[in-house]
Amino acid sequence: MSYQIEVKSNGEQETIECEKGDKLLKVLLQNGYDINAYCGGEGICGKCKVQLKGDIKEPSSAEIKYLDQKEIDKGFRLSCQYEVESDLEVILEAKEDITVMTGGVITELDIDLDLSKEKISLDKATLKNQTDYLKKIYEKTATNKINYKNLKKIPNLNKKEALTVLKWRDQILNISEDNINENFYGLAVDVGTTTVVIYLLDLNTGKEVDINSFYNPQKKFGADVISRINYTFNNEDGIEVMQTPVLKAINEGIKTLASNNGITSDDIYKMSIVGNTIMLHLLLGIDALSIAKSPYVPIFTDELDLKPTEVGIEINEHGIIQFLPSISGYVGADITGDMLTINIDQLKGNNLMIDIGTNGEIVLNKGERIYSCSAAAGPAFEGANITFGTAGISGAISTFKIEEKKFKFSTINDNDPIGICGSGLLDMIAEFFKHGFIESSGKIKEKEELKEWQKEYLDEYKDQRAIKITEKDHSEITIYLTQKDIREVQLAKGAIAAGIEILLNKTELEADELDRVFIAGGFGNYINPANACFIKMIPQCLEDKIIQIGNGAGTGAKIYLLNKQAKERAVNIKEKVEYIELSVNEEFQTEYINSMSF
Amino acid sequence: MSYQIEVKSNGEQETIECEKGDKLLKVLLQNGYDINAYCGGEGICGKCKVQLKGDIKEPSSAEIKYLDQKEIDKGFRLSCQYEVESDLEVILEAKEDITVMTGGVITELDIDLDLSKEKISLDKATLKNQTDYLKKIYEKTATNKINYKNLKKIPNLNKKEALTVLKWRDQILNISEDNINENFYGLAVDVGTTTVVIYLLDLNTGKEVDINSFYNPQKKFGADVISRINYTFNNEDGIEVMQTPVLKAINEGIKTLASNNGITSDDIYKMSIVGNTIMLHLLLGIDALSIAKSPYVPIFTDELDLKPTEVGIEINEHGIIQFLPSISGYVGADITGDMLTINIDQLKGNNLMIDIGTNGEIVLNKGERIYSCSAAAGPAFEGANITFGTAGISGAISTFKIEEKKFKFSTINDNDPIGICGSGLLDMIAEFFKHGFIESSGKIKEKEELKEWQKEYLDEYKDQRAIKITEKDHSEITIYLTQKDIREVQLAKGAIAAGIEILLNKTELEADELDRVFIAGGFGNYINPANACFIKMIPQCLEDKIIQIGNGAGTGAKIYLLNKQAKERAVNIKEKVEYIELSVNEEFQTEYINSMSF
Repeated sequence: MSYQIEVKSNGEQETIECEKGDKLLKVLLQNGYDINAYCGGEGICGKCKVQLKGDIKEPSSAEIKYLDQKEIDKGFRLSCQYEVESDLEVILEAKEDITVMTGGVITELDIDLDLSKEKISLDKATLKNQTDYLKKIYEKTATNKINYKNLKKIPNLNKKEALTVLKWRDQILNISEDNINENFYGLAVDVGTTTVVIYLLDLNTGKEVDINSFYNPQKKFGADVISRINYTFNNEDGIEVMQTPVLKAINEGIKTLASNNGITSDDIYKMSIVGNTIMLHLLLGIDALSIAKSPYVPIFTDELDLKPTEVGIEINEHGIIQFLPSISGYVGADITGDMLTINIDQLKGNNLMIDIGTNGEIVLNKGERIYSCSAAAGPAFEGANITFGTAGISGAISTFKIEEKKFKFSTINDNDPIGICGSGLLDMIAEFFKHGFIESSGKIKEKEELKEWQKEYLDEYKDQRAIKITEKDHSEITIYLTQKDIREVQLAKGAIAAGIEILLNKTELEADELDRVFIAGGFGNYINPANACFIKMIPQCLEDKIIQIGNGAGTGAKIYLLNKQAKERAVNIKEKVEYIELSVNEEFQTEYINSMSF
Repeated sequence: MSYQIEVKSNGEQETIECEKGDKLLKVLLQNGYDINAYCGGEGICGKCKVQLKGDIKEPSSAEIKYLDQKEIDKGFRLSCQYEVESDLEVILEAKEDITVMTGGVITELDIDLDLSKEKISLDKATLKNQTDYLKKIYEKTATNKINYKNLKKIPNLNKKEALTVLKWRDQILNISEDNINENFYGLAVDVGTTTVVIYLLDLNTGKEVDINSFYNPQKKFGADVISRINYTFNNEDGIEVMQTPVLKAINEGIKTLASNNGITSDDIYKMSIVGNTIMLHLLLGIDALSIAKSPYVPIFTDELDLKPTEVGIEINEHGIIQFLPSISGYVGADITGDMLTINIDQLKGNNLMIDIGTNGEIVLNKGERIYSCSAAAGPAFEGANITFGTAGISGAISTFKIEEKKFKFSTINDNDPIGICGSGLLDMIAEFFKHGFIESSGKIKEKEELKEWQKEYLDEYKDQRAIKITEKDHSEITIYLTQKDIREVQLAKGAIAAGIEILLNKTELEADELDRVFIAGGFGNYINPANACFIKMIPQCLEDKIIQIGNGAGTGAKIYLLNKQAKERAVNIKEKVEYIELSVNEEFQTEYINSMSF
């Protein structure tokens, strides 16, 4: 028995078919609709809700947990839980415009490319100079490698005085008679679990020209890396299914960047890619299951130099795609990028670096020695698992303060508030603790324990004690911070604090012996360092030593793109880093529990 | 108007079609028939004769030059001259079985491979040893490079304890779970202008297992390299047309070798290739026109390492194809092979090396300095341009002596004489000069100048004064050595003698200061050194210093196949060699003229 589903999305309408009992989420994903399902369709994140019309079934108990009565009445259901048993009409919400926090602190990057487009003129051959054409080209370009395809082209070129050679290190990537097109661009790409950011750089000047960023389309298969790996494991062709949309989205991003800047994708010759180890595996279509299971072993961590056509990336086909090296399964190439950005290989003293994303990767160097670990912070700071959580997009509450007994907040782009992003969340926790809304254990106080002015903010949301952040008059929706949300933040900040402690113990340093604390990650750039210290995510004595470097991973990718020494530096750094596995570290478990409170 | 041609060949019959006026040679070649046309169809070698039945046209003047009356009566015509203007029956002679002289003098080769098939077992991953799988494989095999395709395979292998890695130098060529097959073979290939020889070697032992040799199928497009280049220039898709049959023939040779030795082509992992520079260009489908025209510049001379699938060679797809480096357009990788064989980089004293084939390549080393040149000897010693010339095949007269006023000769395999190969030709010239049949100018004496017993051998063949070598009672045909043949030999030996003189002058050496004279080339192995000196092809004082090394090029390919130092040695040798262009060398012209006489 098959049913017809009429899907309305972005003003368009389409009819698709499915079989009786099919999960609606699966049907929609299979038909190319972009539905968020952070939890991988397990019914535990509530993000995949859609509005249905027609003969709709009553909500299940899982759905009731994530939908309020008004939503249920309007026909909202969790698509991962809904088994189709009738014809339906599905109304999908318009996708938000995404303006990810992509800023970086470092503005001037040295340019010293390992790639060049050179016009050469071969000396006329004479009986006294019978040097073969290939050798002449090698000599003119200081290269010594060519592939068979380019070698075969040479006979048809040799009458010409003006050849254009695309050279990468000691290799000829392409040789042609084309007139030199001055356009010479490169891309630095940060493939995050949540968002992908593509920076377009002019390779002639080293200047950043434009940015394109978008949600990682894999997030419909799960918000975190483990859900995604589970998806690849549980579904036939899961690895390909996981790889295809992110490649497609990157190629679309490239096209957009090119057309917005009056160039073509053929003008783009190089791409450097950072991302956590699992994102890089999945981008390359390489099964990452072994990273998900103990003992968490990646397939590869070394840097890679690949051809665009091999990877399926649509830049100039003769160009080069470079993956930065990763450190381990849970300290990825993004962290290598951070380390390049802070010049960890040249830094004096003792330095701490924290990249806060879904995982909190922590690096500590004491002179030559570098230690790293990855604390499973969870995606709280990226908006997942928080009732009204959202990424750092337009309308996200990004700062929060209590002044004169009133809640003051700002949103990204000053739009109407739509939810809470990581920096706003952290501010809220700090302010509520500072002003006595919550105990140091994280518990929201009972009504009778609160001051009079505070009582009006106390409320309930879905059987959870909650603090009401916005009223309806501010926005379309009422936004709450629930007890559960606070617990999520405690888990996240506790993990990071414990990770820092482990590295300090390992290096036998006290916190106050650290010279600098770098905070990386899109989120990290926007947090209030004082609040991060106030809630003891970072030792309080370090407040004045914090340097926010923004998207250090992305900046690292740019350095790798522009500077030929970066590859060797990255390999060197990788070799120096000792990774400490926290999942079985007893000391970490103890520290973790101790670090939960405020 | 189209005609039907019935072709009878090797007991089979096929009807093909052609248009009025089509050249018969072209029609036959296009239909896959293997017709010799050394001159490239110019009507000047006479080798493309075929027997016709039906309404046959009278022979043209060009045809009369190459056909005797009996042949004409029997319907023989030159297919390159014959324009089809009626239905025809064509009878093609059965192809001879070819037993090329493939011997070498060096029997024991050091084996020190750069390729290995290794069974490895990865240490169990633990939380204390989270090294990524790729790194573990690198460590176990002492490699550091892998391609994307193999990288993608690793996840599906990682549960296994027993992996098989095919490794070449620092690269992983293949990784699998296959059980190790002990079969491990390699091929050394000598792509000659006239013949191609494939040696099958067991890479486990270094022992030569079998040989397969065949005429280079390109010879139907011309006997010499220049005719073949002209063909590629004058015909659409000429380069592909030239490449395809030799690739196909090599692949067939590989198949034959494999099946004769109870292995499959998948058991063959490596191939090393020598050949003159033009043969290597054409084998790779690279236009060699620039080598044919002054200033004779090759497209490439460097050594190449390619994938079997790139080249189109059917051995194990993960294997490696290596081309030895060439020196210049006319001193090819075959000569580099010779130089490896004689260990020129370690030889003390002054040494001369001559590889006699269609060209005579000459190398002289004086200590560290190495000079080379190429003397256009013409294909006389390979049987072309000689009236009854043939390659060194079954039935070829390979030695010749006058004893007690009688001609004594031997043939290859003691078969009935079918023609004269290079070594027999050289013996004849020497013996006829020694016994006063010919003057030192090369002229066959007038009848009245000859002794009585000699007169019966004097004859005419097609308006040429000729010496009758065999009588009908010896063989199917009467074999003659004509005045023109002697002139061809004079041109050939004169070129070589002059080339030697030029290198001696360059190094300021006298002939008697040379310590050794190596003679390479299939032909070189079978000549009588005394006769080569007697006719002054080689300075007479060197007779006792001659060392015949057989197919030094092929042996060089075997060394390159078996010994990992050979590549670096060959590159080193190449860098040391100074090439001297003879075509514009005035001194050479003078020496050449002086060297013609006996």
